Amino acid sequence: MTFADRLDAALERVRTPALVGIDPHLDLLPPAFAVAREARAPRAERAAAVETFCKELIDLVSGTVAAVKPQSAFFEVLGADGAVAWERVVAHARAAGLLVIGDVKRSDIASTAAAYATAFLEGLPGTTHEHLCDAITLNPYLGSDSLVPFVDACKRANAGLFVLVRTSNEKSAEFQAHGEPRLCERVADVVHALGAELVGSSGYSSIGAVVGATHPEELERLRRRMPRAVLLLPGYGAQGASARDVRAAFPDARKRWRGALVNSSRGVAFAWREKQHANSSWQDASRFALEAMVGELRAALD
Amino acid sequence: MTFADRLDAALERVRTPALVGIDPHLDLLPPAFAVAREARAPRAERAAAVETFCKELIDLVSGTVAAVKPQSAFFEVLGADGAVAWERVVAHARAAGLLVIGDVKRSDIASTAAAYATAFLEGLPGTTHEHLCDAITLNPYLGSDSLVPFVDACKRANAGLFVLVRTSNEKSAEFQAHGEPRLCERVADVVHALGAELVGSSGYSSIGAVVGATHPEELERLRRRMPRAVLLLPGYGAQGASARDVRAAFPDARKRWRGALVNSSRGVAFAWREKQHANSSWQDASRFALEAMVGELRAALD
Repeated sequence: MTFADRLDAALERVRTPALVGIDPHLDLLPPAFAVAREARAPRAERAAAVETFCKELIDLVSGTVAAVKPQSAFFEVLGADGAVAWERVVAHARAAGLLVIGDVKRSDIASTAAAYATAFLEGLPGTTHEHLCDAITLNPYLGSDSLVPFVDACKRANAGLFVLVRTSNEKSAEFQAHGEPRLCERVADVVHALGAELVGSSGYSSIGAVVGATHPEELERLRRRMPRAVLLLPGYGAQGASARDVRAAFPDARKRWRGALVNSSRGVAFAWREKQHANSSWQDASRFALEAMVGELRAALD
Repeated sequence: MTFADRLDAALERVRTPALVGIDPHLDLLPPAFAVAREARAPRAERAAAVETFCKELIDLVSGTVAAVKPQSAFFEVLGADGAVAWERVVAHARAAGLLVIGDVKRSDIASTAAAYATAFLEGLPGTTHEHLCDAITLNPYLGSDSLVPFVDACKRANAGLFVLVRTSNEKSAEFQAHGEPRLCERVADVVHALGAELVGSSGYSSIGAVVGATHPEELERLRRRMPRAVLLLPGYGAQGASARDVRAAFPDARKRWRGALVNSSRGVAFAWREKQHANSSWQDASRFALEAMVGELRAALD
């Protein structure tokens, strides 16, 4: 079953497009995991604390959402010990029945891209595969030939991609809106073309796109250029986008949980830092924040 | 001492802009390291073979070149075991007196970019730092705010960056030459501006750029837009660029080893696969190939 079809089936079960980002920023972890910030603690111990936090976060969102999106940078910061934690966290999420979108934003020329595709999506022959991602994010700057090895890997491994088209950060227009048509529109056309061969029975393609929820007007235009792509929408919550801003991403008016994922990272993982949750455990704060997000999305999208 | 100044001093010693890429592609390793390809071998053993190959390659190029450029993808393909090998290979190169340019092509929004900068350039407080890179490659697609956390880290850690401006792959023009002026020219202007504060006493900035040697006419135009940037030129050898193609990268007519690095990865590391080296050990083949490259560059640039 293709990635897009597996995702569609999972979304049909949970009936929410909410996606939880697993961004274990060392400085934001709950006090119980303070050892992760301890300069005197061995690096392996710090990575183990990150691993435990991520696993607990995964356990409390599984069942509510279809997928999680671990952010590689916050594991890489712990070097080889972080790489061990990454593999265990990904394996834990998959074992919990969640789809895993590795937020790795890799990019390289074709022969090197193929190695990244093996690393994250296909696995080396002979190695265990439970730590592989169902899908990863990619940066398109190098051109479509840098994306093709990943697309080929997706065909073989039933995996998926989310290509950065329009990101949610403040200066994202600097290069992404350059030229006429805007660069992001050209990238969107390439994503649509590359995805044609990977459209599953759900009608969605396993070659998706990242489009920041912080640009609602562009989201609508880009959705028209990529009618089959699953859209991954960052920027919800901490970055200022609202549930109403993401409406245009959902093509199925009767089932506004199909075809797109709305990501919240800090808003869920680090909800315990918000005043309103001052009297809750970090777990309850995250649970409440996720429930609130699911409710908000339901109200705005129905 | 800034990265650009350390690099300039090292180039002054070796008097060649040759840069050796450390791309341990499992399928291309010499027969002595065949265990790295063995599906039945434990992953840690395969990663150890990669590590040994890279260290031997580093030992035979140190003294001849100023820097090496390990490619992260070929370590990541071995997962957490590859991450261990990466740290040891980087540490080995630094201990051998080489500057290390980590070819990681990372990119993300600011808060995440800061974690990558810590991972590769600054190191977490309390952890050992011998596995950190002197510089890394970055992908600019997200915009200048995604580059700034890396620039800030470079100021604090005397590290360097090579931002992808124009790459050497076949379809690199698809997005990089989009618009008027071409996107890569806008990126070049941002690189020049970001680098202004990091110009050392050598006259070069620690914020450099990747410009494919496969586009000699553009190389000249882009060099004019980034007069202070150290240029990293991929595409030499295996990708078809010649020593003459890179001439425009070198601003100092009397010292055409300053201000740019000409990379060869497979051409040196896997020279043993070429017919002309059929009767040599892989070490001799690599040594000969590097000497030939150094000689070619000297002849074409003088």
